Amino acid sequence: MNLSEFIKSMPLLDHHCHYLISADATNREKRLAQVSTEADNDYPLEDTKNRMAWLEFKDEAKHFYKGNDQDYLRDLNGEEYKEYNQSIFKYYNYQMLLIDTGFVPKNPITSDSETEELTGVLIRKIYRIETHAESWMEKKSSFEQWWEALKSDVEQASQNGYVGFKSIAAYRFGLRLKKVGEAEAKKEFDAWKKSGNTRLTNPTIICFILWNLAPILAKQKMPLQFHVGYGDADTDMFEGNPLLMRVFLNRWSMEGLIVVLLHCYPYHREAGYLASVFPNLYFDTSLINPLGPTSVERVLDEALELAPYSRYLFASDASTYPEMYGVAARKFKNALLNHFTGLEIAREKKEEWIRMICYQTSTNIYLKERI
Amino acid sequence: MNLSEFIKSMPLLDHHCHYLISADATNREKRLAQVSTEADNDYPLEDTKNRMAWLEFKDEAKHFYKGNDQDYLRDLNGEEYKEYNQSIFKYYNYQMLLIDTGFVPKNPITSDSETEELTGVLIRKIYRIETHAESWMEKKSSFEQWWEALKSDVEQASQNGYVGFKSIAAYRFGLRLKKVGEAEAKKEFDAWKKSGNTRLTNPTIICFILWNLAPILAKQKMPLQFHVGYGDADTDMFEGNPLLMRVFLNRWSMEGLIVVLLHCYPYHREAGYLASVFPNLYFDTSLINPLGPTSVERVLDEALELAPYSRYLFASDASTYPEMYGVAARKFKNALLNHFTGLEIAREKKEEWIRMICYQTSTNIYLKERI
Amino acid sequence: MNLSEFIKSMPLLDHHCHYLISADATNREKRLAQVSTEADNDYPLEDTKNRMAWLEFKDEAKHFYKGNDQDYLRDLNGEEYKEYNQSIFKYYNYQMLLIDTGFVPKNPITSDSETEELTGVLIRKIYRIETHAESWMEKKSSFEQWWEALKSDVEQASQNGYVGFKSIAAYRFGLRLKKVGEAEAKKEFDAWKKSGNTRLTNPTIICFILWNLAPILAKQKMPLQFHVGYGDADTDMFEGNPLLMRVFLNRWSMEGLIVVLLHCYPYHREAGYLASVFPNLYFDTSLINPLGPTSVERVLDEALELAPYSRYLFASDASTYPEMYGVAARKFKNALLNHFTGLEIAREKKEEWIRMICYQTSTNIYLKERI
Repeated sequence: MNLSEFIKSMPLLDHHCHYLISADATNREKRLAQVSTEADNDYPLEDTKNRMAWLEFKDEAKHFYKGNDQDYLRDLNGEEYKEYNQSIFKYYNYQMLLIDTGFVPKNPITSDSETEELTGVLIRKIYRIETHAESWMEKKSSFEQWWEALKSDVEQASQNGYVGFKSIAAYRFGLRLKKVGEAEAKKEFDAWKKSGNTRLTNPTIICFILWNLAPILAKQKMPLQFHVGYGDADTDMFEGNPLLMRVFLNRWSMEGLIVVLLHCYPYHREAGYLASVFPNLYFDTSLINPLGPTSVERVLDEALELAPYSRYLFASDASTYPEMYGVAARKFKNALLNHFTGLEIAREKKEEWIRMICYQTSTNIYLKERI
Repeated sequence: MNLSEFIKSMPLLDHHCHYLISADATNREKRLAQVSTEADNDYPLEDTKNRMAWLEFKDEAKHFYKGNDQDYLRDLNGEEYKEYNQSIFKYYNYQMLLIDTGFVPKNPITSDSETEELTGVLIRKIYRIETHAESWMEKKSSFEQWWEALKSDVEQASQNGYVGFKSIAAYRFGLRLKKVGEAEAKKEFDAWKKSGNTRLTNPTIICFILWNLAPILAKQKMPLQFHVGYGDADTDMFEGNPLLMRVFLNRWSMEGLIVVLLHCYPYHREAGYLASVFPNLYFDTSLINPLGPTSVERVLDEALELAPYSRYLFASDASTYPEMYGVAARKFKNALLNHFTGLEIAREKKEEWIRMICYQTSTNIYLKERI
Repeated sequence: MNLSEFIKSMPLLDHHCHYLISADATNREKRLAQVSTEADNDYPLEDTKNRMAWLEFKDEAKHFYKGNDQDYLRDLNGEEYKEYNQSIFKYYNYQMLLIDTGFVPKNPITSDSETEELTGVLIRKIYRIETHAESWMEKKSSFEQWWEALKSDVEQASQNGYVGFKSIAAYRFGLRLKKVGEAEAKKEFDAWKKSGNTRLTNPTIICFILWNLAPILAKQKMPLQFHVGYGDADTDMFEGNPLLMRVFLNRWSMEGLIVVLLHCYPYHREAGYLASVFPNLYFDTSLINPLGPTSVERVLDEALELAPYSRYLFASDASTYPEMYGVAARKFKNALLNHFTGLEIAREKKEEWIRMICYQTSTNIYLKERI
């Protein structure tokens, strides 16, 4: 088996992705085009179609479609939709998806078992902290009750089937996370509660939550993911630079908290640097895998300039349709091949590191570390 | 016609460049060396000559010079200067230059018709906002009169032959553009007026101007260019990061304002990201084309990692001598060839996207959109 | 002699590196692994061993070891340690090391003559400003005495064998250097003195020192190095962006101060830009040379996109063991070969620029400029 075949055979544990959607969703071509970009639906679809991602998504669809070449983007009915989905996930050897439950596309399949049936892949869930903090705020009348409820929810998340946590602080104010006192947090919570606005954007409250959940997660050995860098127009990418997390990392990754930086582009060099000097820090370059197909080789090479191979993870950040998971896996596996072909080291070492990246490290931190 | 010939044949609309100079300027070699860098004239010329840009500029001169190889950098007299200029612009198929009238080299040709005669290329003009704001400040005694004059000037710019606007906010304080109230602006204007200093550097006044001209330009469908990133030592490049424009873009590109980010290096990945999520947002990587010749392929590839091909534009940012326009065009066309040769897509699609980049998108936004 | 042989033959002046250690240090394998990363000793060594740097360090050791392949990482005794060291420094044609005396590994050889004997290479020293400022604070009771002592120390540094200075402001608060008044500095000094904490982290005091030593160093034509970008977890890399130095550079590099930016990654493009517009500004991409071996070609290419070849310097930032100096030199020389092979220019020009980078520019600024 040459290196290309070895990489093709690698199982994938996708530690960061989202829900797929059901067969009864219509207008598949449009939905597929829309998910080939981070732009929202006001953005002109003709510009989105002038990106390589869209061409790759279409190629993926054509490649796996059983019918003739003319109608490969038509809506698929139930049984063929399932076969189609499974053929893609199987081809790339996807073994498990860790679904970030905080983002929900239209027509989602939110049931784990239904997703497993559709894809043929095992599902585990990630708990999105800010979403739950918002929903507890609506249900609880005081700061103390809210915090108790959220904390207890988090403590029991593992029992409720979650294998990790995610913070979207970068979507709410940025990554300058710092310690804040309880009195200060309480004051801001009361103002938030009164405001009538459910959306949690207050830096003080978010910092309070993360700083105080960190020791709990560290103790439970449950990973805490962070959105970093690339996302839709709603994220302030200047404030989404992972170097801004230094105070938090100095305190908590030193303390044993497993931190996972998601996406990272265009700060993947910065993320790789952080992984090389902070213990318990992992990262991926997901999202660029399916959405920036011409960049994947270069980005992976840059991400691995300083980072240990034992700290870099595969992820697709895909959602909605299987083509997105497919393009992400194809581009990523090609980039792995390109990277490792260029290294003049023993074949065994290459295989060891490729295994770590594709599934082994994620298996350790999300599934086995706690056992 | 193979792809290389196709690209060579492409007409170029250079949507961002500056004045050329007249034949009677002397010391051509020194002037040419000085324009091969963004350094000012206090910077040692021997260091400037230790850059690839200078070698490329000399190569360009030698290549198009009709005389013998020994004196190809000598001053050229009127008729041969004209022939020499035209031979370069013709070789690269330059069709139109949009001249930013705000920067004026020594010995400039500021007449459109004279520049057209010298180059054989059509000329259109870009209105530099801060320069006009400064000149109106000197002529008007009150904030209200000044603002009325500037606004009316801008409203009539199209009739006066301008096809777009440019802001150099990044040279004056940075790109953290925000909404400011009129009272606040008036107060700062009065202080500016009293200061005796013509140069407009006050963030409040610049923000006021841009925030309030934006709806006018949006309505007129006139593009607003911004200096971003790379420039001379007078720009604070840390504050010239286009991610800092997010508040402005969220408000105005969403509203229909055509925004064009110029230069962008080393933030071209960030600019490409913005183009992929904000409507009406275009960008180029000009200036690096002539001044960083070894980087052009890599920078173009990185710029296009996320951006739609319909949002990326050719520009030279050249001035003074035709060699600079020549090097920019040659390096850019080579980089296009390299990029598109690497894509496994249909030839028709490649041609469509190359056309957009070289002239079609610029034609649409600067010349046709308003009709 | 082809280009590869020419580059191999180039003498190296390493203008930024640290002390080696003595033969009686034990556990060479562990020490060598620890120095293959910027992580501190709490960082898991197994992750450090999952980096290419470690594999390159081992390869280097194996290559130069005279014994059999099984025990090439064993501790070496005195005479063989010396032969081993010399064989590596000689192979890469190291001629001189400028040692930053501020960082001292365990079991160091701090004597210049002993290091010269061990390596066969000439030694010169760099004066680390903050370290001396701290030690004078402990010895002097008032601000005035302290400042007089530090200033006089700096003025006599050249006579005491130092060939340059280094500031680690980036490790203490960042690079936003600005002018501060003496009264303000005195106030902060008094607080520092009273605090009982020797470590100097106060921005006001550091700015005062640098702003007021700058004219002295400019007059003496003594280079001032700055830590920039990549370092251990103790540096805030967000605040270590060299673009933040603009106010300082505008004032002092314009005034004749020779400024040298060290490491720079991931801001090497920014550093190259600064070198292209500020006089008297030099930089390197050291540290990435030995510690990010897969990146060296790409980083060197990016560093040289805008910078004059006369402003870019070789350095290893190595310490402890000769393998680190070896990997840095090997990777850097390979990257030079790759870069210059890609340029279509005369062989003489290539040789001239390669000489500048390897030793000539450093010779000029550290050793000859003052004569």
